[in-house]
Amino acid sequence: MSDTWLTSLITDTPQAGFELAIKLSRVAVKYTQPSAEIRGQLRPDYAEDASALIASSHVVAVNFQTISAANNYWRAG
Amino acid sequence: MSDTWLTSLITDTPQAGFELAIKLSRVAVKYTQPSAEIRGQLRPDYAEDASALIASSHVVAVNFQTISAANNYWRAG
Amino acid sequence: MSDTWLTSLITDTPQAGFELAIKLSRVAVKYTQPSAEIRGQLRPDYAEDASALIASSHVVAVNFQTISAANNYWRAG
Amino acid sequence: MSDTWLTSLITDTPQAGFELAIKLSRVAVKYTQPSAEIRGQLRPDYAEDASALIASSHVVAVNFQTISAANNYWRAG
Amino acid sequence: MSDTWLTSLITDTPQAGFELAIKLSRVAVKYTQPSAEIRGQLRPDYAEDASALIASSHVVAVNFQTISAANNYWRAG
Amino acid sequence: MSDTWLTSLITDTPQAGFELAIKLSRVAVKYTQPSAEIRGQLRPDYAEDASALIASSHVVAVNFQTISAANNYWRAG
Repeated sequence: MSDTWLTSLITDTPQAGFELAIKLSRVAVKYTQPSAEIRGQLRPDYAEDASALIASSHVVAVNFQTISAANNYWRAG
Repeated sequence: MSDTWLTSLITDTPQAGFELAIKLSRVAVKYTQPSAEIRGQLRPDYAEDASALIASSHVVAVNFQTISAANNYWRAG
Repeated sequence: MSDTWLTSLITDTPQAGFELAIKLSRVAVKYTQPSAEIRGQLRPDYAEDASALIASSHVVAVNFQTISAANNYWRAG
Repeated sequence: MSDTWLTSLITDTPQAGFELAIKLSRVAVKYTQPSAEIRGQLRPDYAEDASALIASSHVVAVNFQTISAANNYWRAG
Repeated sequence: MSDTWLTSLITDTPQAGFELAIKLSRVAVKYTQPSAEIRGQLRPDYAEDASALIASSHVVAVNFQTISAANNYWRAG
Repeated sequence: MSDTWLTSLITDTPQAGFELAIKLSRVAVKYTQPSAEIRGQLRPDYAEDASALIASSHVVAVNFQTISAANNYWRAG
């Protein structure tokens, strides 16, 4: 992908960091499957499948580790 | 999700941190599958399936790593 | 669960820490499937299944990372 | 593989780091399956399969952890 | 298990640390399936199955992270 | 295995570290399945299977985390 989509891992709040973790998880899929059409066709395969939802949550958890460390866990300054 | 659900990773006790880890694991699923109805339908698929329960415990473990680090492992101050 | 089951990540020995990691792994399952009866019914599904046993060991390993870090790896004081 | 393909984990931006994480994930596959022809044949097996795409995103997340730490999370200097 | 099997994470060499990581991975299985007979019966299920062998290697890798950190990566003193 | 195969986690370059991570991933398999003949028979099961290749890349990523940390990410001295 040639556009700029990630300029910083720093966020104002933990929730914004969690949402960035979700974004990272999704963008990685886009790099492997660039077709929005195919990704859309696959959506029921994971959004309505318990194992896939758990696996998705796992990826978010890993990315949230990275982002939390980057933000020094948003500890009070 | 437009509401505020995560303002801090800091908790008073390890157990509260563990419960926050469970919350993070579940909220990630909500972001992927926003329909409470569909999530409810999927519940037996994981709550009564050994592999899915283990996978769920895995996600909690990853999130608990993050929260434990954020809280400096609740070491005595 | 309303009872108190985790007050500290600190243990006297690495082995006690490993056993706490096992406890964390199991408690996470209880939060998702509170019924002791159903968990008992599922037991053969994982205790006699190689993949599930490996997956269980994986979760313990992740929790043991957390607990080991909390205890500064039980290095000699 | 005898060529030089990785000389540094340091990147200018988080996005470049994310793309390096993708590269690491793919190169590991090449080491196990050196045949570009076979890898090409397998492509639909993962690029059109939700579980495989999630698993791929997971590997990228782990490698991105490493690269983010190497770059000190690209925090302002 | 009532016996003492883990008194320290410190090892003399990286290889001894790797072997300890393997031991941790196996002991976790013993806690879940205490029967040596059943574990023996399951052995072909994982020792002759590529996915299970990879999963086993994954668990060892996680435990080796912990042990390597405990030993400060066996860097020259 | 009685031979010495790992004396240090330190490598000259990131690429050598990545290749060591691959070695660790493979050696763990050897400990579980010592027979070179059986491992050879299993090779098509993973080298020509997308999910297994992704899983293999995952294990390498975890080991590469360890080795990268050991080498302080090969940052300029």
